[in-house]
Amino acid sequence: MEVTRRNYKDSLNTVYSAIEEADFLAIDGEFSGISDGPNVSALTNGLDTPEERYTKLKKHSMDFLLFQFGLCTFKYDQTKSKYIIKPFNFYVFPKPFNRTSPDIKFICQSSSIDFLASQGFDFNKVFCNGIPYLNQEEEAQLREQTEERRNQHANALLSKCHTYTGFVFFVFFLIYIFFPHLYLYVYFLTRFQRKLIYQTLNWKGFTWKPLKQKSKVDDEERKRREQQKLEREQEELNDAVGFSRVIHAISKSGKLVVGHNMLLDVMHTIHQFYCPLPEMGVGLFFFFFFLMFQEMITNTSLAELEKQLKEGPFKSPQVETAEGFHSYDTAQEQLHEAGYDAYITGLCFVSMANYLGSFLTPPKAYISARSKLVEPFFNKLFLMRIIDIPYLNITGPDLQPKRDHVLYVTFPKEWKTSDLYQLFSAFGNIQVSWIDDTSAFVSLSQTDQVQIAMNTSRYAESYRIQTYAEYIQGKQQDKEKLGQTAKTWGDDGWVKSHYTSSTTSGRLSPIPDEEEEEEESSEGTNPANDAEGTVTWQQATRKGQKNKKKKSKGVFVSLLTLLNLPETVQTVTWCSFL
Amino acid sequence: MEVTRRNYKDSLNTVYSAIEEADFLAIDGEFSGISDGPNVSALTNGLDTPEERYTKLKKHSMDFLLFQFGLCTFKYDQTKSKYIIKPFNFYVFPKPFNRTSPDIKFICQSSSIDFLASQGFDFNKVFCNGIPYLNQEEEAQLREQTEERRNQHANALLSKCHTYTGFVFFVFFLIYIFFPHLYLYVYFLTRFQRKLIYQTLNWKGFTWKPLKQKSKVDDEERKRREQQKLEREQEELNDAVGFSRVIHAISKSGKLVVGHNMLLDVMHTIHQFYCPLPEMGVGLFFFFFFLMFQEMITNTSLAELEKQLKEGPFKSPQVETAEGFHSYDTAQEQLHEAGYDAYITGLCFVSMANYLGSFLTPPKAYISARSKLVEPFFNKLFLMRIIDIPYLNITGPDLQPKRDHVLYVTFPKEWKTSDLYQLFSAFGNIQVSWIDDTSAFVSLSQTDQVQIAMNTSRYAESYRIQTYAEYIQGKQQDKEKLGQTAKTWGDDGWVKSHYTSSTTSGRLSPIPDEEEEEEESSEGTNPANDAEGTVTWQQATRKGQKNKKKKSKGVFVSLLTLLNLPETVQTVTWCSFL
Repeated sequence: MEVTRRNYKDSLNTVYSAIEEADFLAIDGEFSGISDGPNVSALTNGLDTPEERYTKLKKHSMDFLLFQFGLCTFKYDQTKSKYIIKPFNFYVFPKPFNRTSPDIKFICQSSSIDFLASQGFDFNKVFCNGIPYLNQEEEAQLREQTEERRNQHANALLSKCHTYTGFVFFVFFLIYIFFPHLYLYVYFLTRFQRKLIYQTLNWKGFTWKPLKQKSKVDDEERKRREQQKLEREQEELNDAVGFSRVIHAISKSGKLVVGHNMLLDVMHTIHQFYCPLPEMGVGLFFFFFFLMFQEMITNTSLAELEKQLKEGPFKSPQVETAEGFHSYDTAQEQLHEAGYDAYITGLCFVSMANYLGSFLTPPKAYISARSKLVEPFFNKLFLMRIIDIPYLNITGPDLQPKRDHVLYVTFPKEWKTSDLYQLFSAFGNIQVSWIDDTSAFVSLSQTDQVQIAMNTSRYAESYRIQTYAEYIQGKQQDKEKLGQTAKTWGDDGWVKSHYTSSTTSGRLSPIPDEEEEEEESSEGTNPANDAEGTVTWQQATRKGQKNKKKKSKGVFVSLLTLLNLPETVQTVTWCSFL
Repeated sequence: MEVTRRNYKDSLNTVYSAIEEADFLAIDGEFSGISDGPNVSALTNGLDTPEERYTKLKKHSMDFLLFQFGLCTFKYDQTKSKYIIKPFNFYVFPKPFNRTSPDIKFICQSSSIDFLASQGFDFNKVFCNGIPYLNQEEEAQLREQTEERRNQHANALLSKCHTYTGFVFFVFFLIYIFFPHLYLYVYFLTRFQRKLIYQTLNWKGFTWKPLKQKSKVDDEERKRREQQKLEREQEELNDAVGFSRVIHAISKSGKLVVGHNMLLDVMHTIHQFYCPLPEMGVGLFFFFFFLMFQEMITNTSLAELEKQLKEGPFKSPQVETAEGFHSYDTAQEQLHEAGYDAYITGLCFVSMANYLGSFLTPPKAYISARSKLVEPFFNKLFLMRIIDIPYLNITGPDLQPKRDHVLYVTFPKEWKTSDLYQLFSAFGNIQVSWIDDTSAFVSLSQTDQVQIAMNTSRYAESYRIQTYAEYIQGKQQDKEKLGQTAKTWGDDGWVKSHYTSSTTSGRLSPIPDEEEEEEESSEGTNPANDAEGTVTWQQATRKGQKNKKKKSKGVFVSLLTLLNLPETVQTVTWCSFL
């Protein structure tokens, strides 16, 4: 289903119910560009640490626009033994809400735009009919503005009232001072005489109506109008929050979200529809290692993956498009339409999950998205093109790979790859990963050659070689120095989360008969339980600094709290299968 | 005529001939945004100097994309007594030429995009079918790359040939050393024996054909192929230069170019299709004052202007759309389509020019675009929203307006406009022009109040007041200091122009009977005549620094040389009429 500004409001309930009934969701995004700085090979260096990769993407990718968001919901139908799918294709554009609302600027990269154009992307749907959105901060600001305007209006009325009352009292005071006997006279006026006075006073613009009558009719009318106005304002606000409401619904649903190479999708989703991305401090991410099927699938492009997962030992999953939804045909590839990509992503996930079932005794043909078998892959974001760290782990420590065969080399900027090959020609095959114009990682094929290379370089003037360990240590020291000089770490523009961390842990629970172990593991990954329910980034960081043992806990919970992902949205990259 | 990548090559000759035959050209551009920094009111402060305005636009507007270029050519038909027009609407997009060509990033401003969308703008025509373009530097780089590749290919062939020849000589040398008698033997071999040897040598992969026969056929074929390849390369290069060729044609035509609020259009055109914009140094622009019709037309929006110029004392001009071109109907407004805006702009110019004719004795109903009457308006770029400087003069000194009623006020950033009104409440009506959060210009209604205001503020702590003269002096001093510390002024990334300044001055000559005076004036505005024919920015600047008297000359010529506009494209803003 194509969703633009035109049919967004009418489609919202369909989207909500699709999310609510789904077993899992697949997502995909299309962006206006990838990198506003380094080229793709520098952006995705093969020896990046997850922190480096995250920091680079945050710095160089977040000014682009996620302008098409694909969502495909998968619901398993037991009677038909197949998944019923509902694909959505949202076109998103930051249309300014009013004159005072933020006028978003975003970058377009001509190569990315040209690529999408060659795939038949409809830019008019984005720019002319894209659904608006607001992040938390903008939403809060807008609500505040509306509130303020309402108060100002009330205050203006009040002050008008005060001025008026003051004036009347002043006049009566003057009359009392100069013509005290008038009061007695007015008091004894006949009904007719009073009416005459009222009429006379009309010249001043006073509508001198009997008070009781006025208040009755006006009050009701006023209340009705105020109620209407309030409702209208609320609706306008909701319209402005726009597509972010879909993301909130996904977040609140607690459903499993599946993506392909989804680090950038997740980052854009948070950045655009939630809040600015946090800086990654030391120890904010830890790495561990999980590998499967790597030998079986070598090409990770979505199209290739889909083809391979149709063949043995995998099985092509049975799916059916729900009534009223556009039925995709995998024979007619519509790759790089976000909705189609999300659909294919979901299919791949089902194939992979079902394959896991073949290892059980007796083998199972259908494995649910909530199965314990899939659980090890939760909250792992695949890291594209990193040689030895397949994914970034959101909820736990990650692998620190052995990189003792890697050298960090700095050299004059005139050097090219061939110079490095020549320099290390004595050490057999090498692999060069460029960092920037004057530095690169060089991986030797044999670790025992490292010391020899180090010794050889001792007297070199034009270049310098460090082991990977020395390089990491140096970076660490630089960071600590930086930390000592700039103490404002906690105040770096990071927005305090408005969302509270739900304390009902394990909303995404595994299949019932395996619940016991889950209890333990969910506690292990969710220290929000022993916090106050709301853990902000700063609190978590401070906590982490106070108690080294609890550091990892505090930190990753804070991140999840910010994303409102802690137990609600569990993110899986099936790419970590690879 | 709509021109996209699809019909660009076929339309090029039509465009060229339309430009060639035209009396004058009207242009207009549509952009992906206006400002990536300050809001529009700060970007167009009412008391900007032309230099400040230019610098601000250069800093905050050049990262947007000019993606629709409107060109309307006007040719006067004596027999019909009306203009024949040819409107073009070019869609422009920096589609990367190949993998190594620059991957342009540009900003989009959501309010601008939303505005264009509301006007029915077709973004698919830009992003899917926009004509590519290259500026001079990119073009030169691409030509260099192609040349290099060709040389590399030739070198590779040559080195292959050297290696081969070397090997053959080495073999013959060995034979000569070890079996000298073999030579005599070969010398006396029969034809049949030789053939046998040739065949035997075939096992080594040598295709041992009679030399003469081979060279004849291969040489012709090789030449033909090389020629074909060269032509193909040349065509690919021309395709890559793309829309810039239209701009080059306009520039070379020497035709009068008319625009509406065209400062931004001119800057974008130069920046996108020629070269990076120069920095404005001290004294690079001078200001003088020319005012006309100001009381007659108050609203300068294009739609309003067009309406007013249909009524008395102006006359609606007679125009006819050339055959095969889309005929615009001014009743059905298509404003903010660049081609239509260019068309309306041209109409307005004709109305205004003809109005000038009504002052002649006897009055003339038709005034040519080359008339002496229009000449005072040449090379004046209208400055939007500046109170007392209507335009930026490209070819001469500009007005330095009397601003002795203006105060420069600095204050805490909590201050709002109301605080300034309160502060100056004793001095009657004021006008506030914000500069940034902590400073603004305050114009008093009476100049004699300035000294009183200055005296009053002497002991103030929270704010500070300077006269406009003091403010300008301070800025000047700051700049001089900066100039002393940073001596790299001439090397600030400015690209040396590849274009030579044509020495045939006055290509845009006035009507014949007024030619004598023109000779003088064109000399006055074209010191390239006494230079070497090619004046670069640096040369001009150095010249300006050496000879203070010649400064203004050197400077504006250099600018024009860079734009390749000096005598070729004469730019008029009819807005300076206002």
